[in-house]
Amino acid sequence: MEEKYAIIIVAGGSGKRMNSEVPKQFLLVGGKPVLFYALSRAYDIKPDLIRVVLPLASILEWRRLCLEYDINIPHDVIAGGEERFFSVLNGIRDLDEGWIIAIHDGVRPLVTKEMFLQGKEIAKRDGASIPVVPVVDSLRRVTADGGSIPVNRSEYRAVQTPQTFRGDVLLTSYRQPFSNHFTDDASVVEAAGYKVSLFNGSADNIKITEPHDLRIAEELLSSHSYR
Amino acid sequence: MEEKYAIIIVAGGSGKRMNSEVPKQFLLVGGKPVLFYALSRAYDIKPDLIRVVLPLASILEWRRLCLEYDINIPHDVIAGGEERFFSVLNGIRDLDEGWIIAIHDGVRPLVTKEMFLQGKEIAKRDGASIPVVPVVDSLRRVTADGGSIPVNRSEYRAVQTPQTFRGDVLLTSYRQPFSNHFTDDASVVEAAGYKVSLFNGSADNIKITEPHDLRIAEELLSSHSYR
Repeated sequence: MEEKYAIIIVAGGSGKRMNSEVPKQFLLVGGKPVLFYALSRAYDIKPDLIRVVLPLASILEWRRLCLEYDINIPHDVIAGGEERFFSVLNGIRDLDEGWIIAIHDGVRPLVTKEMFLQGKEIAKRDGASIPVVPVVDSLRRVTADGGSIPVNRSEYRAVQTPQTFRGDVLLTSYRQPFSNHFTDDASVVEAAGYKVSLFNGSADNIKITEPHDLRIAEELLSSHSYR
Repeated sequence: MEEKYAIIIVAGGSGKRMNSEVPKQFLLVGGKPVLFYALSRAYDIKPDLIRVVLPLASILEWRRLCLEYDINIPHDVIAGGEERFFSVLNGIRDLDEGWIIAIHDGVRPLVTKEMFLQGKEIAKRDGASIPVVPVVDSLRRVTADGGSIPVNRSEYRAVQTPQTFRGDVLLTSYRQPFSNHFTDDASVVEAAGYKVSLFNGSADNIKITEPHDLRIAEELLSSHSYR
């Protein structure tokens, strides 16, 4: 039996770092809300389920934006929680072990079809997969005494999304109680004792965090096409 | 006595990562070679010395580019070494303890005047200063067994340039023998026992490493003006 494939797009951010009243995922880039692009790319591979997790207070606004910007991609919308952990938990609650589940940041508009597909294949084989890229700048670790020490950046990887998991792995892992040590979905899964396989992400797959990222995304998006 | 201030722009890269025959610092962005922008910004604050360190094999090409692109900013050019460490060493050899010395990556065109000035003030007071920014993506450390573990990204900082030093600190530090553990100038200075002060860099102050960085730089540079 072919497994089912879900793409869960988590867009819980409130936009505080952007000095903006508008949540980051709703800011306009290339004439559409940021969230549109990952949704469109997800739709390109026709998964069995596309679901967007939004803060409860943003759901009506998203519905309005879909009308205003003519976004006709079929997708579920459900309400997130206080922490990303709870948003993901809400997003996967009704799925079962027969699914392959990709979890993607709504503020990473430059994800590619290939990245979704590669993540899915590796997760199917290994249980869990995440895209990573090398760290470009020198890296330091801040120490408890307020100082800092250089670390070897070649030992580090920056982690992107989509992070993809077999249903059995993800659902079991999300039965753990929440911990502040959970930095992303991979860390939840590892805390439950599973291994995570890395594959090469893309430098283009940026996360919209600061105002300058919007300009960068606009430039990078201009060479892609979206339905 | 007012100290003297030198800005040393190190541009030793060979362009391998860009899949390009042209060294990264010579690629065109906004109609000028990448290296022009940091040079222009350095010139804005009228230091006592601006010096560019280039691979010996690139010096004539840089002279030609200065003519072709009408770059009239007065600066020294000297030959670098095999490793960045030796390039910096060549770049500071004739300076003495009376200088404040900023070392900047030639492939960071978006450095600002304020960043140079702040770096200088802090170095004057503390001996050594470097600009840092938060890490945006989740971060993992690759382990010796081929696995990887999540680390807490809030404990890490990405390090930029200009890295600025009092002459006594820098010259003493660069008398050490070369080590593979030197990841940047700050790590050389710390290996010699000095402390390094951090200040806030800028997300815009990107390093041109991959082809997509050129497009990003072009977009970000468009809102600045250069002589």
